[in-house]
Amino acid sequence: MADSTRRSEKSRRAIYEAALALVGEVGYPKTTIEGIAARAGVGKQTIYRWWSSKADVLLDAFMDLGEQSAQAAQTAGETGEEGQVPESYEIPDTGDLAADLKAVLRATVDELLEPTFEIPARALAAEGVVNEQIGVEFVGKLLEPQLQLYVKRLRSAQGKGHVRPDIDPRIALELFVSPLAQRWLQRTGPISYAYTDTLVDYALYGLAPR
Amino acid sequence: MADSTRRSEKSRRAIYEAALALVGEVGYPKTTIEGIAARAGVGKQTIYRWWSSKADVLLDAFMDLGEQSAQAAQTAGETGEEGQVPESYEIPDTGDLAADLKAVLRATVDELLEPTFEIPARALAAEGVVNEQIGVEFVGKLLEPQLQLYVKRLRSAQGKGHVRPDIDPRIALELFVSPLAQRWLQRTGPISYAYTDTLVDYALYGLAPR
Repeated sequence: MADSTRRSEKSRRAIYEAALALVGEVGYPKTTIEGIAARAGVGKQTIYRWWSSKADVLLDAFMDLGEQSAQAAQTAGETGEEGQVPESYEIPDTGDLAADLKAVLRATVDELLEPTFEIPARALAAEGVVNEQIGVEFVGKLLEPQLQLYVKRLRSAQGKGHVRPDIDPRIALELFVSPLAQRWLQRTGPISYAYTDTLVDYALYGLAPR
Repeated sequence: MADSTRRSEKSRRAIYEAALALVGEVGYPKTTIEGIAARAGVGKQTIYRWWSSKADVLLDAFMDLGEQSAQAAQTAGETGEEGQVPESYEIPDTGDLAADLKAVLRATVDELLEPTFEIPARALAAEGVVNEQIGVEFVGKLLEPQLQLYVKRLRSAQGKGHVRPDIDPRIALELFVSPLAQRWLQRTGPISYAYTDTLVDYALYGLAPR
């Protein structure tokens, strides 16, 4: 790696950290490119060289945070080839749909309770609730691609007869993802592994007697 | 009704309308008792005579809004005794759980799309996402009592064998309430009667083949 590339990489990481910390502290409306630059110890022209708005910086900062936590999970969970991190992440497909969904939701519980994620993510989610443009952009670029991983896993389960063929996977995933999201966002109840395991069982097998 | 009571009632309604309009326009942090008083055309001492904080004014304003819409639904849907509005609202119990849940969720879709509700409710929900004290207070006083109506209806269904006895109703209701809440709050998808009907069917009968 050339020295200049290494310097760029270091600046980029400092900018992400500054952007996430600042939005968590002062909220989205008061976060500015100038504030991010000052906190990261770079000139604001350095930021404008790579991004055209604070929304773009934050979008990349969250994507980087997601990649870091996926890499950490990968490193912790596998012995695999060193430094080999897949470009895109998938929900495991062991053939046991309930077990696979429970594993991913347990990892999501951990992420939601991690302060480096939770504080900036709350600030951004709050802005998205009242600011349609920001809400649509961040949901489309950060949340929807994750939801599509569930769509893919549910389609595979339909192929094996584990999910009814008439079910719309894009709606079905909300039965276990949205309750966790609402408890986290609106603090309507505690979140835990036992809770998300229960959501998966209820969603797969229904509330009515079988 | 004495003249002074009528005047009080008129001021109270003006204060509620001002509080909801203001929080929708400027957000919770910039909403002040002074701003509400000016907009309602009353002195701020009139507000302090009845409430001790802007949070209390907004709480009562939302409860009043909920009562008004329940009264409107009651008036539209029933011929019942004039002016007789129940003190507390319940989910209908016709013996057909799916039909009863679908009816209530369709009414919720209507409410969520009503601008007089949606705009202030979004402002308050956004504040609750980042401000734990406000989030916990408003959820506890406004949202949780509504969720408990579903708990009651699901318990009745358990008594009749329509819901499995081992199901926790407080978690079960989230399978159809939270997806609607998340689509509304985070704009993760369109909301409609067809959508909420589907949620009820998926939740009751599960995603796995029966």
